[in-house]
Amino acid sequence: MGLELDYIFHPRSIAVAGASESPDKFGHTYFKNVLEHFSGPVYPINGRATEILGEKTYASVRDVPGPVDYVVSAVPNNAALDLVDDCVAKGVKALHFFTARFSETGSEEGAQMERDMLAKARAAGMRILGPNCMGLYYPKEGIAWGREFPWEYGNVGIISQSGGNAGEMISVGATRGLRYSKVISYGNALDLNEADLLEYLADDPETGLIGGYIEGVKDGRRFAKALGYASRRKPVVLLKGGRTRAGTNMASSHTGSLAGANEVWEAMCRQMGVVNAFSMEDLLDSMVAFARMPAATGVNLLVGGGTGGKGVMSADECEEAGLHLPQIPDSVRGELVDKDPFFGAWVTNPVDGSIMGGSKLTPHEVITLIARDPSYHVVINGVAPSVPSNGRRSRRPTRSSRMLEHTAAIASELGKPVALVIADHIPDNDKLLKASAELHRQCVKDGFAVFPTISRAARAIRRLVDYYRWREEAA
Amino acid sequence: MGLELDYIFHPRSIAVAGASESPDKFGHTYFKNVLEHFSGPVYPINGRATEILGEKTYASVRDVPGPVDYVVSAVPNNAALDLVDDCVAKGVKALHFFTARFSETGSEEGAQMERDMLAKARAAGMRILGPNCMGLYYPKEGIAWGREFPWEYGNVGIISQSGGNAGEMISVGATRGLRYSKVISYGNALDLNEADLLEYLADDPETGLIGGYIEGVKDGRRFAKALGYASRRKPVVLLKGGRTRAGTNMASSHTGSLAGANEVWEAMCRQMGVVNAFSMEDLLDSMVAFARMPAATGVNLLVGGGTGGKGVMSADECEEAGLHLPQIPDSVRGELVDKDPFFGAWVTNPVDGSIMGGSKLTPHEVITLIARDPSYHVVINGVAPSVPSNGRRSRRPTRSSRMLEHTAAIASELGKPVALVIADHIPDNDKLLKASAELHRQCVKDGFAVFPTISRAARAIRRLVDYYRWREEAA
Repeated sequence: MGLELDYIFHPRSIAVAGASESPDKFGHTYFKNVLEHFSGPVYPINGRATEILGEKTYASVRDVPGPVDYVVSAVPNNAALDLVDDCVAKGVKALHFFTARFSETGSEEGAQMERDMLAKARAAGMRILGPNCMGLYYPKEGIAWGREFPWEYGNVGIISQSGGNAGEMISVGATRGLRYSKVISYGNALDLNEADLLEYLADDPETGLIGGYIEGVKDGRRFAKALGYASRRKPVVLLKGGRTRAGTNMASSHTGSLAGANEVWEAMCRQMGVVNAFSMEDLLDSMVAFARMPAATGVNLLVGGGTGGKGVMSADECEEAGLHLPQIPDSVRGELVDKDPFFGAWVTNPVDGSIMGGSKLTPHEVITLIARDPSYHVVINGVAPSVPSNGRRSRRPTRSSRMLEHTAAIASELGKPVALVIADHIPDNDKLLKASAELHRQCVKDGFAVFPTISRAARAIRRLVDYYRWREEAA
Repeated sequence: MGLELDYIFHPRSIAVAGASESPDKFGHTYFKNVLEHFSGPVYPINGRATEILGEKTYASVRDVPGPVDYVVSAVPNNAALDLVDDCVAKGVKALHFFTARFSETGSEEGAQMERDMLAKARAAGMRILGPNCMGLYYPKEGIAWGREFPWEYGNVGIISQSGGNAGEMISVGATRGLRYSKVISYGNALDLNEADLLEYLADDPETGLIGGYIEGVKDGRRFAKALGYASRRKPVVLLKGGRTRAGTNMASSHTGSLAGANEVWEAMCRQMGVVNAFSMEDLLDSMVAFARMPAATGVNLLVGGGTGGKGVMSADECEEAGLHLPQIPDSVRGELVDKDPFFGAWVTNPVDGSIMGGSKLTPHEVITLIARDPSYHVVINGVAPSVPSNGRRSRRPTRSSRMLEHTAAIASELGKPVALVIADHIPDNDKLLKASAELHRQCVKDGFAVFPTISRAARAIRRLVDYYRWREEAA
């Protein structure tokens, strides 16, 4: 259905129009990235400099000796129409406009320029990405707009009407272990739009999970159909910008989008099994759950690692997120009491490790024992770095690592979805800050889905469950 | 009404029963803290060691030469009843039991011990704090259970049924600029309970704002009356543990509490003008807003610092939190267009700084100009550290500091409430991590209310507005 666009992602060569010598300019970054990472020929287009980063420049795309399949435009908006002419003359297949200030400025002049650009491109069969967008991040092919994006690739595909939001998904998502197949920032969606790109990612074998940020939908009926098609194949998580009056107004000045009624959007997502995220955190949390936890359809949850009042709050927040915390079954209770009559009788779900001082049982042995029971479908485990605190020196430098081993065992031996929680507040204590960051990196490296709070983990798990339940019913 | 308990907070001397030589034990920490910071005599009670931290020990509270007003108990639970006898014999006024494992274990034996302790104390007119709690943090008098709690004091008073939650409020709150008058962790509430302590803080001149974490309420009618009394005098923000079936069950094993129906709690909070927080983040955010922003009753919001899609999401999240984002009034628009026809006509609320490249206007000049208009009641401004990113070297090392100066001017010159937003995700980039932490510390030090996301800032502001509106109506 959507793979007819695949050629756009596999250009034989790339030119950057408005390539710049100044490291401050995106015209520099785009070129530097493809120069260093793209395997085919790359050409800087610049009428003044003779070479950029050691590469000979060309005054126009027309002057490039070989074929040019893909062009990135970082030229000023008043040079955009000439560039379209040049690209058409050269036989370019796809032209990405980083160039902005068209219809989103609200001016009739800008809107007219877009219409002219589109007419010229359509007449020649050339596709336009944007304008007013960051374009492609396709690490496997060495194409990116950020210098710090990972070149390691994965199976998360993203479409985003906002380049900033796409960049945040990539960068923040990367720290949480997400790796990407293709990310497409498509801005004003003059030609290639949300439905084209969704259809493409739905059929793209490199993409196992689709995330997105969308402000406006050009053709509601076609988009709804594409959503249903995609969602039956892989999880789709979308964040809608412009849900409110103020947001709609802002979307208009951002990408010239006309946001529709939010009720329609919500109903469409529900019907199509699409996860409707309400914030960047919600979007990232959902993507982390889908990318790093196995499919789950059960809501019975075991919680470990929250002590005292934190355990009480965890229980509340998890139930409020739509999960259930079953009490410890009699058979398991019997085993626990056999091992330690006092603590075995006292312990509950969430498992409060802080009450277990003096017991031969450790909190993680208890969690592992309970997690084995088939009545539990999913586990959330809180972990904290081992650092000196409260004037008490830690006698257990390996506590975190032992906790992780137990948790990994639950995930691998029992095959149950496990989420880890590591608080991410900024502490004044530099040692704690460093230890938290290191623990976070280690857990991410070990393949875990990591969340900053139990409630965010619980909400993400509920979204995972809702999707796989929908897919079972839709099948 | 509540100040009759004031003597408990001003003991002439303090003894720590179960004072320990081992830095791992709280019996050590309690003693070390008062030894170093409390101005009156302090006595370690320990039957084996002859001295602790250089201070002569006593085998029993009875053996202390001078009067003892306040005793902290870190003895095992089977020694608790004898300690009560000793304290009664000595004429102790208040006895705090860090000692735990009573009614919260669910055993009849533990519940009976509590009843016996209470009967002995009541007969002698001695008050009991706890058991199963961390007791007092009263930095002004040099009393604390955490080694890392700030000794600098402020006007935030807290009651908490959970010592862990109290500790988190203190430590995390401290990194966000909160300083405390008195924090009371009261655990099982055998004698001194939530109503006693709330009444006390309501009348306490050192306390300007009350926060709390509560699992169970002993006497609903009295507590509701105390809430109304307190809330008319100062903001009260409460987090209820045990809102759900699972949470209630956990509360019972944590502090032996019977949590009531959540609907009743919610109705009571609404009627009494109490902020009903739903998570630790919500509680802390609300306290930060009340402690660091002026009273506000208007919901018209100006947002700055969010670019592109982030601005769209900000607008949505702020409206969804119950704030309004008025469009820029014609008179202000006229001024903006006079200064720069192109950007002046384009700019919206939220102010998108990323579109303003090439303009003589800076985003912060625009925000300051708009913020002056009387139609805006409150401002949220996003700030980010200046670090090299995306391969582009920062030519503006003082960007953050200039933004802060502008924001500070809005807060001080216009007298409008301002919230700052600094993202707190854990980046893989150590430079960014360090720069974010430093910027956060600087903003907190400058007196700002700082939040990790715009939506959390918006929700906290709405809670601020709701409280002051309630108070106007209740007056």
